[in-house]
Amino acid sequence: MAIKTPEQYYESLKDLHPTAYILGEKVDNPTEHPLIKHMAAAVAETYKMENDPEGRKFLVAESDLTGEEVSRFVKFYKGPDDLIAKVRMLKFLSQNIGGCYMRCTGMDAINAVGIETYNCDKKNKTEYWPRFLEFVKMIQKNDFVLFSGVTDVKGDRMLRPSEQKDPDMYLHIVDRNKDGIVVRGAKIHQTGSMCAHWALVVPTREMIVKKEKHVDDTDYAVCFAVPNDAKGIIHVYGRGTLEAQPLQDCDLGNAKFSKASPMVIFDDVFVPWDKVFLCGEVEYAGRMVRNFGNYHRHSHGGCKCGVGDVLIGAAATAAEYSGTANVSHIKNKYAEMLKVTEAIYGCSIAASVESTETPSGIFTVDPVLSNTSKLYEGKELAEVICMMVEIAGGMTTDLPSDKDFANPEIGPMLLKYLKGVEGVDTMDRVRIFRFIEKLAFESRDIVSNIHGAGSPETHRMTILLNADIEAKKKLAKKLAGIKD
Amino acid sequence: MAIKTPEQYYESLKDLHPTAYILGEKVDNPTEHPLIKHMAAAVAETYKMENDPEGRKFLVAESDLTGEEVSRFVKFYKGPDDLIAKVRMLKFLSQNIGGCYMRCTGMDAINAVGIETYNCDKKNKTEYWPRFLEFVKMIQKNDFVLFSGVTDVKGDRMLRPSEQKDPDMYLHIVDRNKDGIVVRGAKIHQTGSMCAHWALVVPTREMIVKKEKHVDDTDYAVCFAVPNDAKGIIHVYGRGTLEAQPLQDCDLGNAKFSKASPMVIFDDVFVPWDKVFLCGEVEYAGRMVRNFGNYHRHSHGGCKCGVGDVLIGAAATAAEYSGTANVSHIKNKYAEMLKVTEAIYGCSIAASVESTETPSGIFTVDPVLSNTSKLYEGKELAEVICMMVEIAGGMTTDLPSDKDFANPEIGPMLLKYLKGVEGVDTMDRVRIFRFIEKLAFESRDIVSNIHGAGSPETHRMTILLNADIEAKKKLAKKLAGIKD
Amino acid sequence: MAIKTPEQYYESLKDLHPTAYILGEKVDNPTEHPLIKHMAAAVAETYKMENDPEGRKFLVAESDLTGEEVSRFVKFYKGPDDLIAKVRMLKFLSQNIGGCYMRCTGMDAINAVGIETYNCDKKNKTEYWPRFLEFVKMIQKNDFVLFSGVTDVKGDRMLRPSEQKDPDMYLHIVDRNKDGIVVRGAKIHQTGSMCAHWALVVPTREMIVKKEKHVDDTDYAVCFAVPNDAKGIIHVYGRGTLEAQPLQDCDLGNAKFSKASPMVIFDDVFVPWDKVFLCGEVEYAGRMVRNFGNYHRHSHGGCKCGVGDVLIGAAATAAEYSGTANVSHIKNKYAEMLKVTEAIYGCSIAASVESTETPSGIFTVDPVLSNTSKLYEGKELAEVICMMVEIAGGMTTDLPSDKDFANPEIGPMLLKYLKGVEGVDTMDRVRIFRFIEKLAFESRDIVSNIHGAGSPETHRMTILLNADIEAKKKLAKKLAGIKD
Amino acid sequence: MAIKTPEQYYESLKDLHPTAYILGEKVDNPTEHPLIKHMAAAVAETYKMENDPEGRKFLVAESDLTGEEVSRFVKFYKGPDDLIAKVRMLKFLSQNIGGCYMRCTGMDAINAVGIETYNCDKKNKTEYWPRFLEFVKMIQKNDFVLFSGVTDVKGDRMLRPSEQKDPDMYLHIVDRNKDGIVVRGAKIHQTGSMCAHWALVVPTREMIVKKEKHVDDTDYAVCFAVPNDAKGIIHVYGRGTLEAQPLQDCDLGNAKFSKASPMVIFDDVFVPWDKVFLCGEVEYAGRMVRNFGNYHRHSHGGCKCGVGDVLIGAAATAAEYSGTANVSHIKNKYAEMLKVTEAIYGCSIAASVESTETPSGIFTVDPVLSNTSKLYEGKELAEVICMMVEIAGGMTTDLPSDKDFANPEIGPMLLKYLKGVEGVDTMDRVRIFRFIEKLAFESRDIVSNIHGAGSPETHRMTILLNADIEAKKKLAKKLAGIKD
Repeated sequence: MAIKTPEQYYESLKDLHPTAYILGEKVDNPTEHPLIKHMAAAVAETYKMENDPEGRKFLVAESDLTGEEVSRFVKFYKGPDDLIAKVRMLKFLSQNIGGCYMRCTGMDAINAVGIETYNCDKKNKTEYWPRFLEFVKMIQKNDFVLFSGVTDVKGDRMLRPSEQKDPDMYLHIVDRNKDGIVVRGAKIHQTGSMCAHWALVVPTREMIVKKEKHVDDTDYAVCFAVPNDAKGIIHVYGRGTLEAQPLQDCDLGNAKFSKASPMVIFDDVFVPWDKVFLCGEVEYAGRMVRNFGNYHRHSHGGCKCGVGDVLIGAAATAAEYSGTANVSHIKNKYAEMLKVTEAIYGCSIAASVESTETPSGIFTVDPVLSNTSKLYEGKELAEVICMMVEIAGGMTTDLPSDKDFANPEIGPMLLKYLKGVEGVDTMDRVRIFRFIEKLAFESRDIVSNIHGAGSPETHRMTILLNADIEAKKKLAKKLAGIKD
Repeated sequence: MAIKTPEQYYESLKDLHPTAYILGEKVDNPTEHPLIKHMAAAVAETYKMENDPEGRKFLVAESDLTGEEVSRFVKFYKGPDDLIAKVRMLKFLSQNIGGCYMRCTGMDAINAVGIETYNCDKKNKTEYWPRFLEFVKMIQKNDFVLFSGVTDVKGDRMLRPSEQKDPDMYLHIVDRNKDGIVVRGAKIHQTGSMCAHWALVVPTREMIVKKEKHVDDTDYAVCFAVPNDAKGIIHVYGRGTLEAQPLQDCDLGNAKFSKASPMVIFDDVFVPWDKVFLCGEVEYAGRMVRNFGNYHRHSHGGCKCGVGDVLIGAAATAAEYSGTANVSHIKNKYAEMLKVTEAIYGCSIAASVESTETPSGIFTVDPVLSNTSKLYEGKELAEVICMMVEIAGGMTTDLPSDKDFANPEIGPMLLKYLKGVEGVDTMDRVRIFRFIEKLAFESRDIVSNIHGAGSPETHRMTILLNADIEAKKKLAKKLAGIKD
Repeated sequence: MAIKTPEQYYESLKDLHPTAYILGEKVDNPTEHPLIKHMAAAVAETYKMENDPEGRKFLVAESDLTGEEVSRFVKFYKGPDDLIAKVRMLKFLSQNIGGCYMRCTGMDAINAVGIETYNCDKKNKTEYWPRFLEFVKMIQKNDFVLFSGVTDVKGDRMLRPSEQKDPDMYLHIVDRNKDGIVVRGAKIHQTGSMCAHWALVVPTREMIVKKEKHVDDTDYAVCFAVPNDAKGIIHVYGRGTLEAQPLQDCDLGNAKFSKASPMVIFDDVFVPWDKVFLCGEVEYAGRMVRNFGNYHRHSHGGCKCGVGDVLIGAAATAAEYSGTANVSHIKNKYAEMLKVTEAIYGCSIAASVESTETPSGIFTVDPVLSNTSKLYEGKELAEVICMMVEIAGGMTTDLPSDKDFANPEIGPMLLKYLKGVEGVDTMDRVRIFRFIEKLAFESRDIVSNIHGAGSPETHRMTILLNADIEAKKKLAKKLAGIKD
Repeated sequence: MAIKTPEQYYESLKDLHPTAYILGEKVDNPTEHPLIKHMAAAVAETYKMENDPEGRKFLVAESDLTGEEVSRFVKFYKGPDDLIAKVRMLKFLSQNIGGCYMRCTGMDAINAVGIETYNCDKKNKTEYWPRFLEFVKMIQKNDFVLFSGVTDVKGDRMLRPSEQKDPDMYLHIVDRNKDGIVVRGAKIHQTGSMCAHWALVVPTREMIVKKEKHVDDTDYAVCFAVPNDAKGIIHVYGRGTLEAQPLQDCDLGNAKFSKASPMVIFDDVFVPWDKVFLCGEVEYAGRMVRNFGNYHRHSHGGCKCGVGDVLIGAAATAAEYSGTANVSHIKNKYAEMLKVTEAIYGCSIAASVESTETPSGIFTVDPVLSNTSKLYEGKELAEVICMMVEIAGGMTTDLPSDKDFANPEIGPMLLKYLKGVEGVDTMDRVRIFRFIEKLAFESRDIVSNIHGAGSPETHRMTILLNADIEAKKKLAKKLAGIKD
């Protein structure tokens, strides 16, 4: 069956043995670790929703490859309706998970890679597209979680991949043989890597060959898939803010769900040819990542609007518990918060409506609208979070810990003094403040708003590249009465 | 034929004899007056586009009432596709007219009135809906221009219509007889009134009856249609900024098109029953205007994105003519300008996608998204205009007049000194600066960005009314681990 | 006596015979022209205030040159207290004039020129400083109005003055002889030029000599003073928005005061040596204009805060007249408006406190703070104006004209329908709406907010030049535990 | 000697035995605890600076009470120069500490209490002022650290102190006897409480007596001083974000300094009469806290500008280490960051210049300007932090931990892959990213920007209360030609 249950997902994790390090220690079953288990739970929730009568309306669709019902997380975007459905799915999930569920990068990468493998085959007589379809069918049949390995560590940002002193600063091919290729490098901010089954690795930027300038990025133009626990793949969890609590087995604010974005080192990993989808055809490298970026900014549109609903709901709950629910300036702030979150959503919906078919049959989103959506997430959503904190008040920042409440001497005093309005349990008030702390200060979430799917400057550049300024000049000249 | 040509439109204006005052003088053929003719030209351009191969893709559709091809300006919104098509039409027209073409208020009013006449008939056994359909068919067959009479003068804003000392501060019924009704009052900011064939008058706010508080707005709950030159209707042009030039027969910056929003006084105007579509059923008054408002904010989404393209094009042309086209901070501003204009557009497209069918078969737009779109027009679009002025430089503000250039002593010196880059005619540079002056300082356009379709505070209130804050609180509580 | 009365000012204008063109016509006594007389009135108001018991506290101080009481408009800044006094004077005047009084550019130029003539003499054995002191004493004794000729027309912005195809695109020396020099060029946006007695002309940018690149701006490094009606000086009024009303002898909104910024052509003007203050010493050209710019942004700080008080007062009056004075969101907007206007003021006061003495004894303002002040005027003050319009409502944009009110048929109806709350004369309501129209749409004022004293990009560059980023990096590195 | 050394400060801490709980455990010497010692270090740094030749220019001044040199942290504000000196001192310290040094609340409280004890004595024949002077002299002579106990836990925000179901939700007098008073309640967010010698407790809001409405806040109008380790005082550290690292003895990003704001419970604390400075005189309660608030917003002005310099320096260092130092959009962001931080500073300097003497001889700051300064900290400084994160990139969020770097298997790989430009030690790059993480995600700092010294809504209300809107209306009416 192409739709997994959460139980099947957890079961499938047992077959995986990724090499994983958490806070300096090698960990055998990372998804059971206190810092990771809430992330696996967020992924598992997507499987639960695929089997939920309400949820499946958002998450399940028919595959054009297999004819079977599959998860939208592993499906091609075959038209505006698929793209609208994706945005609504992500909004729905974010409303119910309150953050990341770590399956979007794979979904967006499948589509971005699909388009260019098709294009490359047409021009270069390669065979990436049929290979890739086989891979996608396998993923669909197993309802696997895929993470996209995009972001390289990059070294000196002013140098091209092949110009770096250490050639490994961008992932590249270090060997080719009859069975496959060997790759080396490191990808950072790999959302969900420890909870995934497979990686679909994509170049992080355009690659070029300019022999006369001694630039040759050929070996960096590589795209492939690899199981999460392949030999040579090392996941390093890193650190996040807010970790003292789960390390002491207390919750993080969000009672059930969390997120991590490990660094993934590819220490001479072998990839067989049937999982190689680009191998030196430099002209497709940049296109892949640009399409990926546009798709992923579009994904953020649904996701962050759903998170926005949670931000507003959390602020409104804190206000209710403190007795300020009917204060006029607080209500006014909800409208300002909605202004931003709905604009983020609206632009993603519109980017779907204005989508375009590619030769592969996969549809690309409108790049101006999808990048516009993301820009509002980078600056204005930070203001929304500020407003949430402004509404909730200072108690979001330095509440006593669970251990303080458990202390017999001060616990009762804390419960007495942290009481809000009558009828609300003090610990519920504490819970909402902690949830707001999580929503405002979890660095991976906040930085994802800014740098997820590329930096704001990348979004601006993409908008400029795709907005036809010359055509706009023509409009203005004509209206001003200027003859060309 | 249900599609008029511009010539037929101009011909039809000759049959109209509206009572019109311009700068204190009664004017017989107002649409030929130097202050009005450019407005008639903007309306006429819509007819031209209905007959243009490219334009008709945007402007012409099949009527569900007559089966004939009709203008989208007089058509019901029968689904998301109609609403999307409307947004795209308005963007297209604004790109080509650079401002208002004065047919949107009528289009939006037709749909808002349609919904509630149907609802009222169902509940009250009235016969407004069939009457209204006859009216709309007549409008469609003649491809008439309709203006919606919404905004009353309002007197003391803290008092209800029936509480005002002068009962005429809101338009109301002063007599009813077997043939029809007589109405009195004044509507302000009536975009395009002098260039229209008919008015469709709608209440400007909710109306209530609270006998115990001596409040009875019954006579104010009135909706009707009336020809533009009906007895008792008086159009007062008023004043705008930037009028010194057209009064001296020079252009206004936009070489061909302009806009006005007269005050229209209803001095005891008789309306026969077959043109009366609401008459005392207070519960539908507020609903009509709320639907109208949501539709009209949605209209602004397409329109102002198109204007935005012209703003950007004008700024880029000014930069080209001054030699600053490749300056990095200027390019960066285009991206910031697009961020706003595309968000305005995107939210209107999304409000179409998320539309809802009413019992009448007419679809309403998503109110949160359409009001969000309008909010960006009220504040952020002003920043876009600032950026245009920043890019264009100070010369947009105090250029010599046409008469200075014509003066034999100083004219040649002005042409010498106002030269920009080589190869650009100085007068073309002057034209683009004047166009920018028009785009930045035409008060009716700028204030329309803020107050058109209701004030920003109305938009915020509408968003709050329609966003389910309680549902969002439930999401947050569940995620925080709070049991309800 | 060194303090003139308004009557003496008007008398002195009679002795001036500037060559002036208004709307294509040569005008003999421009300050009596309907488009200029309100500007002369604004200047005259400064003389009135110099003689007013309250006003003289702000406007009058002792000259360090003559020991006499002089106007602060013609005085050197001899310490932080003088600079603070200047900011407060400008705030006071703007509160009472509601806009420009056209004496600040001269004041700021006197100080900027003073500093560099001193520096130049020290290094080059020139004699500009004593000459300049004589000039300033003469101006002080006569309490003259001085305009600073800074902004050249500039031609192609990417080319240096000496690289332009037409060498006259920047004002320059075309002849030198034993009696003096002859200059040619054109200065635009010359605030108050027609109402002034003298011009003090300053280079508009840095000038350089790079012989190897065939760049030689020597002849453009010129600073001098000249009477307003010298032979060869031609003032061209140009056009503004909002001129239809004064052309018909109706007011502009501000009942008494207005502003203009003509273009001033220097058609081979002779300047005797005793009025030449820089003549080819290129290194001082850029310094003069940079100091001028920093001073003038500092001037805007006081001025625009005073205008801001008027904007807020106008909005609050409109709200009072419409009955909305106690609406909470309107009050909230006053706070947001004050946030901006007080920041503009505060930064100018702080730039005074943090001022530095130059070798001449004249103090320069802190450039980071004065440019910061101006940046808030370029973007945020536009938002303040938007808020004013939002509060006042749509009636600010298309009110009937004076001639409509005078019409016996429609006049009484207009008075009836434009009534606001009881007890307020309808014409007073009309007056405040027109004043708001003036405050929001007078292009010269609005563009001055953006481009006055240089463009926002210039302000940003000045901030970056003067903020020591390397020192800030040292602070951060030390705190992060990084050893240098 | 009235100026302590850091060593003397640390010595003095040994004599204090506050009752303190950290993460549920009672701790004997809290200032040696890993979570607190960096806070004590920040306080100690102020003592170091008092003894440093450069630092003492900022921190040391002559006491008007004792004639001795004292720390500015314990001195009355005797004129604009004292207030300017304070702002500069705080900027200087923040530049060198990168955050809070926990002595400002005491400084501001001393001045706020001084003003009202004087006023109360004049009216009520009380003897608070001489008592208070004795207290201040004692503090000055010992150069003690004082924290101000202002913010109560507040319970239901819609109820007054005496209306709460639990009367202890605001600190109040529960007993009075011949020796003194007994107080009960809890103060939260008590910056630096564990590192201080004394508390100066102030009411958190206005108090009223309306017998007819059964409201009597008399017992809540109480101000007093008490040693930090008085019987009944319990400090509860609470929790912050980012604590996992120091708990494992790794640093927090800022190598040496940190901050905490414990909750302080007053469990029936006895205060002798000579340390009681208000006891039931309700009219002075609100005035005390309003003056305190205005002073404290003024303090933020200097402090956060200094922090801003560190934010900019950290961003610029990260850019340098990644090779992006010369990218134009990054430089442009520095200008935008400075725009905000300098406005915050400028308004505080201006609030000093516009200060007013009170009957006590202590000067109050201009409330409009000081609250304006703080408003920029609440919204715009959050944007500055966003810009820092945007410049620094995603690596600020999920870097490997110290323990990962120490791991022999992955440590070397991490050092290889996290390398930036040549010549920069990878660990220095890690240090700057961690410092940025601290600057962006330390909840106590960030929330202090928003809620420190009252919420933004309080700042807006204070601005409105002190800005004379009626006077501004008069200006507008006069200019519009409206006769009053």
